[in-house]
Amino acid sequence: MERGTVRCAANYAPLTPLSFIQRAAAVYGDRPAVVYAGRRPTTWREARDRCVRVAAALATRFGVARGDVVAVLSPNVPAMYELHFAVPMAGAVLCTLNTRHDAAMVSTLLKHSDAKVFLVESGLLGIGRDALQRLADSRSSAASIPVLVTISDDTDSIDPDACGNEYEALIKSAPSHFDIRWPANELDAITLNYTSGTTSRPKGVIYNHRGVYLNTIATALAYDITPMPMYLWTVPMFHGNGWSMTWAVAMQGGTNICLRHFTARVIFDNIARHGVTHMGGAPTVLNMIVSGAPPPPRVLARMEELGFVVYHIYGLTETHGAATVCTWMPEWDALPVEERARLKARQGFHHIAMEDADVKDPTTMENVPHDGKTVGEVMFRGNTVMSGYYKDVDATKESMAGGWLRTGDLAIRHPEGYIQVKDRAKDIIISGGENISSIEVESIIFGHPAVLEAAVVARPDDHWGETPCAFVKLKDDASATEAEIIGFCREKLPHYMVPKTVVFEDLPKASTGKTQKFVLREKAGAMGSLTKAGNSKL
Amino acid sequence: MERGTVRCAANYAPLTPLSFIQRAAAVYGDRPAVVYAGRRPTTWREARDRCVRVAAALATRFGVARGDVVAVLSPNVPAMYELHFAVPMAGAVLCTLNTRHDAAMVSTLLKHSDAKVFLVESGLLGIGRDALQRLADSRSSAASIPVLVTISDDTDSIDPDACGNEYEALIKSAPSHFDIRWPANELDAITLNYTSGTTSRPKGVIYNHRGVYLNTIATALAYDITPMPMYLWTVPMFHGNGWSMTWAVAMQGGTNICLRHFTARVIFDNIARHGVTHMGGAPTVLNMIVSGAPPPPRVLARMEELGFVVYHIYGLTETHGAATVCTWMPEWDALPVEERARLKARQGFHHIAMEDADVKDPTTMENVPHDGKTVGEVMFRGNTVMSGYYKDVDATKESMAGGWLRTGDLAIRHPEGYIQVKDRAKDIIISGGENISSIEVESIIFGHPAVLEAAVVARPDDHWGETPCAFVKLKDDASATEAEIIGFCREKLPHYMVPKTVVFEDLPKASTGKTQKFVLREKAGAMGSLTKAGNSKL
Repeated sequence: MERGTVRCAANYAPLTPLSFIQRAAAVYGDRPAVVYAGRRPTTWREARDRCVRVAAALATRFGVARGDVVAVLSPNVPAMYELHFAVPMAGAVLCTLNTRHDAAMVSTLLKHSDAKVFLVESGLLGIGRDALQRLADSRSSAASIPVLVTISDDTDSIDPDACGNEYEALIKSAPSHFDIRWPANELDAITLNYTSGTTSRPKGVIYNHRGVYLNTIATALAYDITPMPMYLWTVPMFHGNGWSMTWAVAMQGGTNICLRHFTARVIFDNIARHGVTHMGGAPTVLNMIVSGAPPPPRVLARMEELGFVVYHIYGLTETHGAATVCTWMPEWDALPVEERARLKARQGFHHIAMEDADVKDPTTMENVPHDGKTVGEVMFRGNTVMSGYYKDVDATKESMAGGWLRTGDLAIRHPEGYIQVKDRAKDIIISGGENISSIEVESIIFGHPAVLEAAVVARPDDHWGETPCAFVKLKDDASATEAEIIGFCREKLPHYMVPKTVVFEDLPKASTGKTQKFVLREKAGAMGSLTKAGNSKL
Repeated sequence: MERGTVRCAANYAPLTPLSFIQRAAAVYGDRPAVVYAGRRPTTWREARDRCVRVAAALATRFGVARGDVVAVLSPNVPAMYELHFAVPMAGAVLCTLNTRHDAAMVSTLLKHSDAKVFLVESGLLGIGRDALQRLADSRSSAASIPVLVTISDDTDSIDPDACGNEYEALIKSAPSHFDIRWPANELDAITLNYTSGTTSRPKGVIYNHRGVYLNTIATALAYDITPMPMYLWTVPMFHGNGWSMTWAVAMQGGTNICLRHFTARVIFDNIARHGVTHMGGAPTVLNMIVSGAPPPPRVLARMEELGFVVYHIYGLTETHGAATVCTWMPEWDALPVEERARLKARQGFHHIAMEDADVKDPTTMENVPHDGKTVGEVMFRGNTVMSGYYKDVDATKESMAGGWLRTGDLAIRHPEGYIQVKDRAKDIIISGGENISSIEVESIIFGHPAVLEAAVVARPDDHWGETPCAFVKLKDDASATEAEIIGFCREKLPHYMVPKTVVFEDLPKASTGKTQKFVLREKAGAMGSLTKAGNSKL
């Protein structure tokens, strides 16, 4: 059947999101691409040209080659957006670091990622420089220390001659012509996203061009993003590349409204000023908007009362963000609001570019019945599952054993097939959208001289979703206060990972000697929320 | 950078539209997939199951193997829709034949395609049997004659035992289990579409699974098709597989409203009865709806007056149907209706899955300037360009020479980049050294109140080389003379563009509804020269 066919440039091109910005520059050339604070908006033609110049600077000035890693530590400013195209245009791999990391963690990830260039936004320069110093101290040769490039917030005051490695200055001094390094193979890496690993074993999730291209399209379809959306950047771009919305806004020729940081007030101001059509966020962000509503279904109901249409998306860093969408049936519109919120809280079905999602017994790999009660593990397979964990093929293989990505999330399937997650991977605490490994926090507490045993679990929280709660058994004749333990952790952990509660007691043990965390989770659950979202009413 | 990555079933799947029906059965299982005349609607779960059973029957009963061709001659009935999934599920290639072909042409295409099975809808059985007889007569052995399967319109009267090879009977008697033959390689062929070739050299356009998958998504995005559309089948499925809408309706879990044939009345009835959200059609179909409205811009304006939102899509069989879309800018909504229609008549830009579209000098391959007047050839490159012409690698290579698919369509680019097709290369009239766009002349003649349809072709001329010759069909009860039409054109066109000849008659149409200009060119050629060389001086 292949007689007469050819494969050539006319009918084959590697799938890559770089095609989206090329097309946006052609179709939406004069329309606003990026809006930020007091700056003049950038058009799509300008945005594309700026990205090409950044790529040129990376390649010619710093010798960035195909497959090299370029790391960035930045909030959602325009440079952070542009780097999602500029770095792949140089054939390189973009590694976005969590802005809540401390210098020790940043240093660990710079080392693990082998970053050649490190871009740091001005507000995070302290952490960035500290991280580089730590890296230098730990290495014999300075040759492998990444080059620092700063991203200034006040671009008007930059003197291109004076500032050596400043982002805007680089753009101005870049060669005017540069041939975009299109991927030779669509499975080539495009980004590296570190997820909730420990400092001893960072987990760097690798995405490839094909996966990003497909997930971008599927995300746009999942949110019904029609051409020329006004997108408000409330999702951190360092989180799985903003759940692919970085590329999706280019695909649909929309406008990116960048924000350094935000409050409910800032969100509403931007909605009013720019006619925002879409925004995203973890439950905490939604909670911030409705300021005062507690559990997920109630938050969803409040959002609708405010006139928002909520799309419920579920996924992991390992699935590029969105992997499932709660498909909304038109007849549900007529249901009472509580019922609608209950239905919307379901995770739903795999999106269009994910090949399949299922809930399985992790041992037998059999699917659970669609009975609304049998619990199994959520698993995925498809082109929008990561390529793997950087430098950790064992972890990669383990995560995909049996030909399915294992999420560690426990769920049931409703009779109509909708997946609903019932419990998270048991050791992970999700606070304000950040994944916290309880093991990592425990390992710090264990370092306190008075501590014999420690276990950290999630305590439900109206504002943060969850906060870390530590159960501690002290050594005989030793003593410590809650404030001492918290202070000890503050010295060693980023703020968000520090336990907000410490309880001193003997830890419940199974016969194997393992701590029974489910018992502690129940206790923490019974404590109630530490921060009341309802405070705003007082 | 690939350290740690793996490629396995968890993170790689060949792109294929079969994934869309699998997903539709899971997500939209109880919703209507196919609606037809008096039959009970088929749900997506049932539709998927029926397709699997057809695939099972093809494989087990007729020995259809991977890469085999299964041909079908049918209007837009449910079986025709299902075969777009069922045949690829058997690993085979679907070849949909034009229902306006005569038995000789069908016989030629059955032979050229090496079809193993031939499904024929009851209303076309005469042609189908005649074609098979011709094939038998021309062959030494009967071994290579395809098996005939009939598609009955009145499914209630089918006796599964009595009817040997009847479609519904096959489904009923098929094995209940069959493993879908997923493509081993996403570049494997999925369909074969014969396009405007001659009987001596049929041109069979091969699509592959990857191209179909991507074009389906791009088509859904180009038309803003959100989940669960109600799609009315006014585009023949045998035309480039219904411009990918066959698969796009499954992708979005919509409902296919199948029609054997239609009139403006049938269209409006179905819109009222089913709440149709989308339909498609060549300009003739739109013209049928507005019954009597003339040229493209005016037809577009009338459609909007009726409440239709018109998306203007352009492409070829070689590009899976849609390749460009006239991207509509929101500020254009405020323009006067004539201006909006004029803008909507542009072909626009390549869609999201086509890598690039451009207008080039076919010799130098240089892009024409965006000046609104320099004419070049429309060219495409990307994953939604065909694999090639079946058994004709020379034609394939010629069509893609230089790494771009050459369309033969002549166009300009407006200053904002929009492509506008001016004419087919072969439809350009060259008179006294001037290029005349037949489309431009036609659009003027359409403006005459008595004119229903018009087509302008070249008439050979001893003095001018060629002169424009207009073929005109008048509206019922309307009248106009040759002198009136010529006078009308003189007021609006430069002298050299005004037709020298006007012929009043019905225009010959292809199955697409397109006027067959080659027939008119033959007629004009037979008229001989209007001016004898030298006469013009008299």
